[in-house]
Amino acid sequence: MVTAIKQMEQEFLDYVKKMGAYKEALGLIYWDLRTGAPKKGMEQRSEVIGLLSSEVFKMSTSEEMAAYIANLTSVEHDLELSEITKKTVAECKKEYDRNKKIPAEEYKEFVILQSKSEAVWEEAKDASDFSMFQPYLEKIVEMTKKFITYWGYTENKYNTLLDMYEPGITVNILDQVFCELQEKIVPLVQRIKESEKKPNTQFLYHHFPKEKQRELSLEILKNLGYDFDSGRLDETVHPFATGLNPGDVRVTTKYDENDFRTAIFGTVHEAGHALYEQNISSALIGTPLCTGTSMGIHESQSLFYENFIGRNLSFWKGNFDLLKEYAPAQFQDVTIEQFYRAINESKPSLIRIEADELTYALHIMIRYEIEKGIFNDEIEVKDLPKVWNEKYEQYLGITPHNDANGVLQDVHWSDGSFGYFPSYALGYIYAAQLKHAMLSDIPHYEQLLEVGNLLPIKEWLTKNIHQYGKMKLPLELIKDITGEGLNASYLIDYLYDKYERIYEMKK
Amino acid sequence: MVTAIKQMEQEFLDYVKKMGAYKEALGLIYWDLRTGAPKKGMEQRSEVIGLLSSEVFKMSTSEEMAAYIANLTSVEHDLELSEITKKTVAECKKEYDRNKKIPAEEYKEFVILQSKSEAVWEEAKDASDFSMFQPYLEKIVEMTKKFITYWGYTENKYNTLLDMYEPGITVNILDQVFCELQEKIVPLVQRIKESEKKPNTQFLYHHFPKEKQRELSLEILKNLGYDFDSGRLDETVHPFATGLNPGDVRVTTKYDENDFRTAIFGTVHEAGHALYEQNISSALIGTPLCTGTSMGIHESQSLFYENFIGRNLSFWKGNFDLLKEYAPAQFQDVTIEQFYRAINESKPSLIRIEADELTYALHIMIRYEIEKGIFNDEIEVKDLPKVWNEKYEQYLGITPHNDANGVLQDVHWSDGSFGYFPSYALGYIYAAQLKHAMLSDIPHYEQLLEVGNLLPIKEWLTKNIHQYGKMKLPLELIKDITGEGLNASYLIDYLYDKYERIYEMKK
Repeated sequence: MVTAIKQMEQEFLDYVKKMGAYKEALGLIYWDLRTGAPKKGMEQRSEVIGLLSSEVFKMSTSEEMAAYIANLTSVEHDLELSEITKKTVAECKKEYDRNKKIPAEEYKEFVILQSKSEAVWEEAKDASDFSMFQPYLEKIVEMTKKFITYWGYTENKYNTLLDMYEPGITVNILDQVFCELQEKIVPLVQRIKESEKKPNTQFLYHHFPKEKQRELSLEILKNLGYDFDSGRLDETVHPFATGLNPGDVRVTTKYDENDFRTAIFGTVHEAGHALYEQNISSALIGTPLCTGTSMGIHESQSLFYENFIGRNLSFWKGNFDLLKEYAPAQFQDVTIEQFYRAINESKPSLIRIEADELTYALHIMIRYEIEKGIFNDEIEVKDLPKVWNEKYEQYLGITPHNDANGVLQDVHWSDGSFGYFPSYALGYIYAAQLKHAMLSDIPHYEQLLEVGNLLPIKEWLTKNIHQYGKMKLPLELIKDITGEGLNASYLIDYLYDKYERIYEMKK
Repeated sequence: MVTAIKQMEQEFLDYVKKMGAYKEALGLIYWDLRTGAPKKGMEQRSEVIGLLSSEVFKMSTSEEMAAYIANLTSVEHDLELSEITKKTVAECKKEYDRNKKIPAEEYKEFVILQSKSEAVWEEAKDASDFSMFQPYLEKIVEMTKKFITYWGYTENKYNTLLDMYEPGITVNILDQVFCELQEKIVPLVQRIKESEKKPNTQFLYHHFPKEKQRELSLEILKNLGYDFDSGRLDETVHPFATGLNPGDVRVTTKYDENDFRTAIFGTVHEAGHALYEQNISSALIGTPLCTGTSMGIHESQSLFYENFIGRNLSFWKGNFDLLKEYAPAQFQDVTIEQFYRAINESKPSLIRIEADELTYALHIMIRYEIEKGIFNDEIEVKDLPKVWNEKYEQYLGITPHNDANGVLQDVHWSDGSFGYFPSYALGYIYAAQLKHAMLSDIPHYEQLLEVGNLLPIKEWLTKNIHQYGKMKLPLELIKDITGEGLNASYLIDYLYDKYERIYEMKK
């Protein structure tokens, strides 16, 4: 008996490895498409993507896969299988169920709709006209609702969508933490708006040559502990990080010669994602567990680096001279305090991806409430521009002047990625919880930043998070590290401390 | 009946397209490995390569493939199938036979031996010690001889190996043209050696900044008709061109800041390969016919561009000012005639890849004679260093001072690529035949080069060669264009004309 099940375990792992190989090839193709693949080769490359993807899909829903899942999840073998195998089977089962429950014809229709809808969204955004996009979005929503009936749900239909990006997170949990965040952040934003101690930000917009920004980005990546033997830095329109395997995790950034912050903070943010993927245990290579456990935990890593390191005063005390080396004229008359206040300026804005650390979560809550409303039949697609604008007024005190700056700004809904947005806010909350826990183990955190010794921080994150890949669920990780569940109070405390100081408010 | 066979035709083409998709993904992976893939990701990337390659291998030797071949080659369907389908089936059959005739166990052993042997070759070359490599080469030769018995042969065992790279070319043909070439080239090389009119080449070695060389390379590629919407230029240790599909054909080059010729002539050479792949008929995309028809014809295109364009006086008359823009100081006191003579300097050398246009073929003949001797049991592996050095003395009048500069210089034998070398010399011969034929259609060839209008040349090559991909065999192409078979006299005439002029010899 042992031999048979052990043999099946090995066959299953080989099977999964093959799927992983196809995914790795696809990952490289996507990276290449964004970093300079010749445009006339695209049509044929799309065929390659289609064939490889459908091979992965077929393997994930095959009868072979069904047999592996049935045999390897049977209770009698529980003790004979490795922990990695069991979690891998669970991951495969989740994907199998998700894919198998939708009739093949409907799935195909949805995939075609996705790509059409994304194209229409782009046109609608350019024309700033929601009505162009509306019928497609209605169809996408309608089909997603139908999928939810196939998949089933617990307590709230929207939970099924949340679970795809952040397993374990539910509407109940989010309602509570988002409410708490809103209650605390909205007044703070208001006080800042009224503050007369606004930072001077003029010097941020001086001309900073691209080549110099690139050299500085490379230097900073190295200082953060990014391993260039396991990665490379390229330039793209939209910065991203992609982990092909832990030994090949690439980052990209974008250079704005009139605002160096785009590249620097973009690079630091992607470095956070990349460090996660570079430091996953090599034991997980070739399994679907060899990646970040969720969108939210991934975002917690990028935001940890971007905010708790990149926008931290101590970090810049240690790096201000380096910055001046690359742009001496720009910063010669700027003090470190002025610099720190300028890069942390906060004000309500219309565009999510340009939002600052304080107001960002409000943008997410708006989207969360809208998505929740849609899937609980409380909001209709046709009313979205109106609902959107009302919520922006309510949360941020500003109203979009057109659809492009409002309801059409994000790509997510055009391909049906409902349930994704909350991960961004969760990333902030997790990051603040982690930072708090880290301080118990690394009380001299600020000194490390000031002397530029970031190794202990990376090691702490590797030990507590990175190494596990998908072996632990998001809330399992947070519980093991902090002893508690999702808790927004650490983020709130951090934001109050930081912004009351920057805007010189009385506590 | 028609319906059934037409349906099978479509299924076969889909099957072949899938194999093509895997090969395209592999092509991108190889390109990426050489252009900056992080080294720590290599181990896992090798797994991906292994899995994708073995999938292609499996598909090429499957029972399904056998059935397609059997059904689609039966005489009764000859008129119902398209020409493309029939040639595709023939190509698949060739591969099927080649792979199926070797017992799986032996094939596997050979693949492992290849990679070991290549690693040992590298060490042996570094140590300049043939004896380290000898046992591996003996095993490679022994297994290849066994494979020839599986594959069968006509007239000469070496023909089977030649046929893998240059279908239709045999020992009989090569003996004749190589003999002719040797008889004519060796005395010319000798006369040049004795000539007192040696070109001054000192100015070639001035410092030419890499960034400037890159800009010049881009400019020249554009002038040659290389389509940047279907390609890109990168930097690698060993320059190459790779056609992923006709809309994505990438070239690389290498920059030597103390010898600009490496980059410029390397780029022009690779452009010749790339123009071939960029201009294959789109009707062949997704079939194995969508690539150059043979190594020799491919090389004829790169050598046509490198020598008949890149080392041509008229071309530089049209481009000398451009060159001076990028390196004004280096060429300010150089006349176009001096420049032309310098870039065409000829002298016997030990290293094939550094050889000039005139002596290159001699390096190839030495390798050809050795390979032919090995597979006809006339030369033993253990005697190779001795045989090699004797032949270098005989053909080029120089003797390697060690194995690294002699018998160990090329990678080809380490992975068993016997039969490949002759393609390089065939490329020269074909190119001269094509040039001769082209002059009938484009009598103002030299003027076109001088004014920089290379379009008619590219179009002629596309019309006569590029578009066909693998639809025509090498000698079929040559026959259709020139009306004759392989003929070395055009190359000989060209070399005499050119070098007697450069070295100011009496005819």
